[in-house]
Amino acid sequence: MNAKEILMKAVVCDQTGRLLQALAYYQDGIKILMDLVNEETDVGRKKVYHSRIKEYLDRAEQIKERISRFGHSGSLLHSVSIEDGATGYSYHTLIGKYLSNEVKEVLIEEPYLVERYQNLINFLEVIIKNCADLKFVRLVTKTDTKNPANQMTALDNIKTDLSVREIILHFTFEDTLHDRKILLSSGYVIKIGRGLHFYKPNNPRYTLGMCDYDFRKCLQTDVDILRIKKVS
Amino acid sequence: MNAKEILMKAVVCDQTGRLLQALAYYQDGIKILMDLVNEETDVGRKKVYHSRIKEYLDRAEQIKERISRFGHSGSLLHSVSIEDGATGYSYHTLIGKYLSNEVKEVLIEEPYLVERYQNLINFLEVIIKNCADLKFVRLVTKTDTKNPANQMTALDNIKTDLSVREIILHFTFEDTLHDRKILLSSGYVIKIGRGLHFYKPNNPRYTLGMCDYDFRKCLQTDVDILRIKKVS
Repeated sequence: MNAKEILMKAVVCDQTGRLLQALAYYQDGIKILMDLVNEETDVGRKKVYHSRIKEYLDRAEQIKERISRFGHSGSLLHSVSIEDGATGYSYHTLIGKYLSNEVKEVLIEEPYLVERYQNLINFLEVIIKNCADLKFVRLVTKTDTKNPANQMTALDNIKTDLSVREIILHFTFEDTLHDRKILLSSGYVIKIGRGLHFYKPNNPRYTLGMCDYDFRKCLQTDVDILRIKKVS
Repeated sequence: MNAKEILMKAVVCDQTGRLLQALAYYQDGIKILMDLVNEETDVGRKKVYHSRIKEYLDRAEQIKERISRFGHSGSLLHSVSIEDGATGYSYHTLIGKYLSNEVKEVLIEEPYLVERYQNLINFLEVIIKNCADLKFVRLVTKTDTKNPANQMTALDNIKTDLSVREIILHFTFEDTLHDRKILLSSGYVIKIGRGLHFYKPNNPRYTLGMCDYDFRKCLQTDVDILRIKKVS
């Protein structure tokens, strides 16, 4: 897709309330426009590009601002303090009741995705199985500085796998990211102190909890679930 | 436990209908008696041992005979032919509706348990989560001739893990075993052509299906579920 097509898609998503997907398209479109403006020599055209870029940047910023506000507003629905060594806290047990076909988009802000992709896979399995109309997952994480190629391969594989199921996985790297947050477009924010990684490894490997995380021992962490305005 | 204690337990289990556990105790008790009879020099005592051994051996044979008949009788409840590459056939989806707290004992006859213990773990997770009163699992398999120590360690770890949940895992090796069969003491036999191993490996590794087998592609196999008389 060229910049125009991408940005048209961004506007359509924006108008139909698919904010996370709109943001991804705005950001991708802006990137291409930036490259074009650098190559452009005609001053008049350069100006047109600049004004377009500004327009889309402003809208992207508004959406980002709105999304980030979601983590700091809303009413606290449910709060769980998971004790060290506790079991019975699979992703499904924790958030299953907030999953439905109302969820069209999901945002996952998880700074650490390094070698431990099984947790991400498990989380995606849970949301995809329980949100029949899920179309878009935005994943924000930090670069794996030790093995960026490995990380890129893993995320690309997951993206391809999801695309077969007609779900777009859009990942982006923000290397100052610290907080963990999961946003369901149906109007919930899930904040887990340790993000996706609050399970202890199975030791020995072949014990219950290998596949079903309800059997897995947890690390101490707090979980807050907030009700916010519907995003889409 | 000494032979007497073990065999007393066998009789109690036998009388209360816990046939699989009774069988395991009979076999363990007989093994100890056999060693004792070999060491015994007194002819009179040797005779007593021999008659006891015969008595328990006969009962163990009767139980084995009864259990093996279960695979060849009963009414066919449900039959599924899984196509190569199909998905949506996790153990839970396949047999979940036959699991309940009526299931006190489970027999798993699975000749091949070599390096692929994840399937066994996943299966155990499903039955343990859905059979609240499960007390005993009898696992019959073949020796891993390439790496018997590895197999023993894996099965011992699983046994220890289950014992924490007050479930006894009793495994035994029958190197002529060929057929696959799963018996639920509540009165069901599940026969899967490929036994526990009808899932294709996840490739690439990090894709959906890593934990939730409903997303996992299957190999072609047939599944028959039979209703039999309640075992316990």
